Amino acid sequence: MAKYKLWVVAAATVLLLAGCTSLQSNLSSSSSIKSTKKLQTTGKVTDSMYEGVIDNNQYKTSQTRGLTTQQSNTAFDVKSLESGLLNISKKQFPTDKYLYQEGQTIKTAEAQKWLARQSKDNTLGLNPEDNGEKEPDKRNPLYLQQILEQDFLGADGALEGMSIGLGMNQVDYYAKEQYGATFETKISSAMMAQQGKQMANKVLTRLRQKKGLSKTTIVVGLYKQAPKDSLVGGTFFAYGVSKNGSTTIDSWHKMNQANQVFPLVNDEKAVNQSDADAFTSFKGQVQTFFPNLSGVTAQAHYEDGVLAGMNITVNTQFYSETEIMSFTQYIATAADKYLPQNIPLDISISSAEGVQAYVGRAAGSKGFSTHVFGSY
Amino acid sequence: MAKYKLWVVAAATVLLLAGCTSLQSNLSSSSSIKSTKKLQTTGKVTDSMYEGVIDNNQYKTSQTRGLTTQQSNTAFDVKSLESGLLNISKKQFPTDKYLYQEGQTIKTAEAQKWLARQSKDNTLGLNPEDNGEKEPDKRNPLYLQQILEQDFLGADGALEGMSIGLGMNQVDYYAKEQYGATFETKISSAMMAQQGKQMANKVLTRLRQKKGLSKTTIVVGLYKQAPKDSLVGGTFFAYGVSKNGSTTIDSWHKMNQANQVFPLVNDEKAVNQSDADAFTSFKGQVQTFFPNLSGVTAQAHYEDGVLAGMNITVNTQFYSETEIMSFTQYIATAADKYLPQNIPLDISISSAEGVQAYVGRAAGSKGFSTHVFGSY
Repeated sequence: MAKYKLWVVAAATVLLLAGCTSLQSNLSSSSSIKSTKKLQTTGKVTDSMYEGVIDNNQYKTSQTRGLTTQQSNTAFDVKSLESGLLNISKKQFPTDKYLYQEGQTIKTAEAQKWLARQSKDNTLGLNPEDNGEKEPDKRNPLYLQQILEQDFLGADGALEGMSIGLGMNQVDYYAKEQYGATFETKISSAMMAQQGKQMANKVLTRLRQKKGLSKTTIVVGLYKQAPKDSLVGGTFFAYGVSKNGSTTIDSWHKMNQANQVFPLVNDEKAVNQSDADAFTSFKGQVQTFFPNLSGVTAQAHYEDGVLAGMNITVNTQFYSETEIMSFTQYIATAADKYLPQNIPLDISISSAEGVQAYVGRAAGSKGFSTHVFGSY
Repeated sequence: MAKYKLWVVAAATVLLLAGCTSLQSNLSSSSSIKSTKKLQTTGKVTDSMYEGVIDNNQYKTSQTRGLTTQQSNTAFDVKSLESGLLNISKKQFPTDKYLYQEGQTIKTAEAQKWLARQSKDNTLGLNPEDNGEKEPDKRNPLYLQQILEQDFLGADGALEGMSIGLGMNQVDYYAKEQYGATFETKISSAMMAQQGKQMANKVLTRLRQKKGLSKTTIVVGLYKQAPKDSLVGGTFFAYGVSKNGSTTIDSWHKMNQANQVFPLVNDEKAVNQSDADAFTSFKGQVQTFFPNLSGVTAQAHYEDGVLAGMNITVNTQFYSETEIMSFTQYIATAADKYLPQNIPLDISISSAEGVQAYVGRAAGSKGFSTHVFGSY
């Protein structure tokens, strides 16, 4: 028998984005929200996560999530918009004071109208009307690609806060004719920001007219969609808070985020060369270890130019229980040795049969936690 | 900021089978084996796992793993044989004194001969010769289905121990003609045990003649293969230890293991009805929570009639980051409330896109650890 002692320091903002391994000694005592007993909640495993609200034994799924214009979102963009908006929300609506609910106010049909172009039939469209042009720089692009609502409730279940994420295109992909080749209209950062801020005010004006929302605090986050072929999601570039019934965001907070995929390809410039080099060393070490290892890739996330976390995927043809056990231990050793210290790491080891094992390091922790998926 | 304190008590034998979440504060100091520095190892994340040996920067994969007779093994049987044999080995070769190596002594071609039938061309076959009969109770069935070797090395890298697992059929599936219908020869427990013990002695005799193995301690485990359509692996029913060059196992230790899949189907009798009822409550609670939840199943493992662990798989159509977060917390709450206490639990939450989250409770722990697989 051996004993380990571990302190898990929950660093709320970073932990969530990285996916979190959390520990607690007693589920029932962990909720710090004094909920009136009529309200049913999910329970809570860590202070950095919101407790979710359950209605009549059922979880209410989102009305707006995953909605999009004609052009579809990558799964990365859908997830990044969600988790990024949740992180912004935590600054305004602390997880120990608010419960979480998937967006219920903006209905699906309504959101679809907002996402579509302005037209005689759709006066609610936030995207500009079709001017009939087909050339990339003459046509009116779709600026808004996704809209997402997240709700924050008080202990009595009343809606006390809301966050709205607007996913803005940096490139609008379009076809000149149905099933035709794909063309691109590029949108400048300045234009993207200007359009996003205008739309934010329009959305606020509409929300303020809804029942119960006249005074609710509403956070709006502006998100830059990743390019279509990206292997990582986009990033938030600004957010603002509307209080006391205001129909405009008067002060925008700039956000400096960047995502990068390792290994770098096509002479792409590293956000930070030493991080890219560290990953290359790790990848090389891991790939010599096992024959037939098919791939090691990473998503790196930067906040204000500093590495804030990495998600690494290792694909292997192996799936023996003992091989995966040895490999998992080796990966933890190599990660500790080669990868940057003091950032959350999330490493999944997959075979054709799916995820076989996981190696993680939480924010603020030096130790690694591992899990090998077993079978009896 | 919140702080949790956790004691992870590594209960070696149970933890491994369940797949283990383990934690440690410092990788480099965790190895308790004073290895001569020339030997390269995987590093170690928990005392309940073996440290693996690396040869010339590469991991040596098994020569015997996954080998089988004509009839193929289920993936469950391959994994169960491996992890079960490793658990038996830990009694004889403690993880803090031995390093692990995938079986290297019995070569692939040799094992294939051992697994085949006796014949003029194959005098090494451990399975009986074909007597020409086609009827289930007149033919000679294949008794041996799998053979697996695991090696245990001392700190200097010398082979000091070996474990051999023999996977014995309780049913031999065969066809009377090529591509024909499948017939079954049932094998009694008594016959299975008798054949397994005879084969163990033959294998020992052959191994003792190999270079360096004349005095090595060799453990032999006898494993009962699961039926072909089983959703859980088989179980070990006996093991013995050969020391000082003995070519027979003189004393067999009986093992009383059972695996069961929940929910029970076709009026199957529960090993323990209250465990089956607990699972039914858990499943019901979880399925009302989320609409469109497609399935909740479990593998339960029993040692001497007592529940020793459960692996639960929850399949959902949902894959929203925030939905998965809420669901993960809810599952931990429901598991704590409805499932048996004091056993290791391993719950994976999967969508069509693969594993989305994991909820686990280690042996001897009251708290749950969770991980939501994130993406930037």
